[in-house]
Amino acid sequence: MLKARPLPPYLIQRYHGWKATTYTENESWYRTLAQEGQHPRAMMISCCDSRVHVTSIFGADQGEFFIHRNIANLVPPYTSDGGQHGTSAAIEYAVSVLKVAHVIVMGHSNCGGIKGCDEMCCGKAPALDAPTSFVGRWIDILRPGHERVAGIKDDAERARALEKEAVLISLENLTTFPFINEAMQRGTLTLHGLWLDIGEGHVQQYSASSGEFAPI
Amino acid sequence: MLKARPLPPYLIQRYHGWKATTYTENESWYRTLAQEGQHPRAMMISCCDSRVHVTSIFGADQGEFFIHRNIANLVPPYTSDGGQHGTSAAIEYAVSVLKVAHVIVMGHSNCGGIKGCDEMCCGKAPALDAPTSFVGRWIDILRPGHERVAGIKDDAERARALEKEAVLISLENLTTFPFINEAMQRGTLTLHGLWLDIGEGHVQQYSASSGEFAPI
Amino acid sequence: MLKARPLPPYLIQRYHGWKATTYTENESWYRTLAQEGQHPRAMMISCCDSRVHVTSIFGADQGEFFIHRNIANLVPPYTSDGGQHGTSAAIEYAVSVLKVAHVIVMGHSNCGGIKGCDEMCCGKAPALDAPTSFVGRWIDILRPGHERVAGIKDDAERARALEKEAVLISLENLTTFPFINEAMQRGTLTLHGLWLDIGEGHVQQYSASSGEFAPI
Amino acid sequence: MLKARPLPPYLIQRYHGWKATTYTENESWYRTLAQEGQHPRAMMISCCDSRVHVTSIFGADQGEFFIHRNIANLVPPYTSDGGQHGTSAAIEYAVSVLKVAHVIVMGHSNCGGIKGCDEMCCGKAPALDAPTSFVGRWIDILRPGHERVAGIKDDAERARALEKEAVLISLENLTTFPFINEAMQRGTLTLHGLWLDIGEGHVQQYSASSGEFAPI
Repeated sequence: MLKARPLPPYLIQRYHGWKATTYTENESWYRTLAQEGQHPRAMMISCCDSRVHVTSIFGADQGEFFIHRNIANLVPPYTSDGGQHGTSAAIEYAVSVLKVAHVIVMGHSNCGGIKGCDEMCCGKAPALDAPTSFVGRWIDILRPGHERVAGIKDDAERARALEKEAVLISLENLTTFPFINEAMQRGTLTLHGLWLDIGEGHVQQYSASSGEFAPI
Repeated sequence: MLKARPLPPYLIQRYHGWKATTYTENESWYRTLAQEGQHPRAMMISCCDSRVHVTSIFGADQGEFFIHRNIANLVPPYTSDGGQHGTSAAIEYAVSVLKVAHVIVMGHSNCGGIKGCDEMCCGKAPALDAPTSFVGRWIDILRPGHERVAGIKDDAERARALEKEAVLISLENLTTFPFINEAMQRGTLTLHGLWLDIGEGHVQQYSASSGEFAPI
Repeated sequence: MLKARPLPPYLIQRYHGWKATTYTENESWYRTLAQEGQHPRAMMISCCDSRVHVTSIFGADQGEFFIHRNIANLVPPYTSDGGQHGTSAAIEYAVSVLKVAHVIVMGHSNCGGIKGCDEMCCGKAPALDAPTSFVGRWIDILRPGHERVAGIKDDAERARALEKEAVLISLENLTTFPFINEAMQRGTLTLHGLWLDIGEGHVQQYSASSGEFAPI
Repeated sequence: MLKARPLPPYLIQRYHGWKATTYTENESWYRTLAQEGQHPRAMMISCCDSRVHVTSIFGADQGEFFIHRNIANLVPPYTSDGGQHGTSAAIEYAVSVLKVAHVIVMGHSNCGGIKGCDEMCCGKAPALDAPTSFVGRWIDILRPGHERVAGIKDDAERARALEKEAVLISLENLTTFPFINEAMQRGTLTLHGLWLDIGEGHVQQYSASSGEFAPI
């Protein structure tokens, strides 16, 4: 038998508060969304980290962003192995079915997944090297990025550089998907790379012309 | 060269608005979150769908929910094949590193991924059957759930039942992960299954005792 | 022969600047909008006044607001006379075809149309009383509102009260349209009344419970 | 009692963001506009369509364009029937009170109102023929334009031609207003006809000498 439990009371109470206020005041919009379907303009790929709220930062309402969140906002490269790839499935749905105009990858400061990747690649986290470590195998995606920052001596500086590499690796991998390339060539899709400083509330974006992240 | 583009101006404008208001009014909390790290009490697994905002529904602030979002809020079964499993990595990080007390799976009405799964399993969506369909292979996770609702004649009714099966299949698969079982046996983790009616703003939860979803 | 002239050079120059920057950086979104059609979530009814930019105030991008602008943001009452009613046509298209979730009427301070209505109703603007005055006949829509503020002695105060009456009269008239009523009863449409102080940048909204405009 | 509702939270949040940034950085200009009144140099007549932002395309700031937006950017012919004509009122105010130097009519591609007119005139939209259809009666203004393009066989080509006819019909109707003619004869007013391709970001203007629309 499934061992599911009732929600904690504080969540039930908050839900009823939401239902009586935010939902009730906007029920017409919720019903429209249900009946007419979603037409998001952008897909946002960000981290599962509880401190990263893209809808708040960009003033987005229900219906605006199609959001995939995984550890360290990583996109694996395209493969046609017929396996189960949740991130690739989300991207395919956003681009091929919903036809979003933008795919935005947002990395962030103080990222635990990135720190784990740095430690693993520096040989300091044997547990992550184990084949049974889901986190370890997932952040393998970022290994090519680590090679590009491995020369940085300062740990904090190297972690921050690796956080930005995670965005770049994901952007690079996005362009290995045939349907992404086709949409980009048709001029109906653009890619964007962002990095958020959680504590300072700064957002930087990657500029292809300068090859650097700069404040927006 | 990476073909990343600058953000659309309206998003930049909105970001600056957020920075000048929400961030500025709460910067002490953002800085605390950055310095002290995240301590989320729950992991939320929900759909990428742009209409599902769990932080709004449950009044959650920055730092409360560790959120993984994928197509149709699916959790694959545990495997030790050493492959790249983004969803399993997110769960492992939440339970083993962050030690969340709750893993909550939230399905929803009008789900495009679930509708695709229903059509595929009914033989009406050959494109999703192709080995190269990322969406198709991902929603294969739900095939055992479709068998349990296949007898329902009405399309809309069957889709709704399948949306709830997606929650149950995910809960079942969660219990195949050794670290989940250990935490449940230690009494430090509980699982929860929810289903959201987008248009009506109703949330139902699965009750293990009744074996049904009921309003919270 | 039509006496149309070429655009002034400064507008041509600005257009080319927009094309080379804003358009180019966002062409994927423009193409998506062209191919997929518009799905605005709200209809905004505001004044033609050059100082009222609802898209700026609400951070709205191309595709978000269906906007009708006329003198003094007025909605005439429903009529089935088979005549040519531009405002009623815009509302019908927004609600019945586009199925927007919100109709928002935004009045504003320093409104020339409202001032003209006040002068006309106070007998100080005979030119506006003429049957051939398009402005005069248009602002006749607001006469019932003027009766409710006619007792205010101070000219500036009375004009401001009349600006808010223009919003209320429009909201009242909106509810005389059968398709508006039906959508409201189905719970898929809500009405909203706003008033903007141009100089101070304040937006107030009408509260049905208090019967007053209050800051948002 | 008026059934007005509070604004959705995301719009309130965005407004506060605008107030704290765009408004605050430019408050001297907003206050000047409020105290000195508006002195727009041009009236823009464009469609309500959410995808048409003339202020963005022409880099126009608060105070530059007096903007009337209706379905399909149509101007009805002059009439002295003493009725309520919102478009004619807007034009009268712009030309006779504000004394704008330009009246610019801007049509656009993918226009739903124009498509409806084409279907109605081709006998494929009986609902629009009903006397109670506000949209149908409004786009009757364009019937003379449809006669001029009815010979075009291809649907998409005919719709595009009709979009341009909507601009020409409006320009023709503008010259039936006595105050427009007087201002043109005094040399203080010029008319301009534009057509925007939403997806490609192209703007064409009508040339009286060639009788054609050409890129600007």
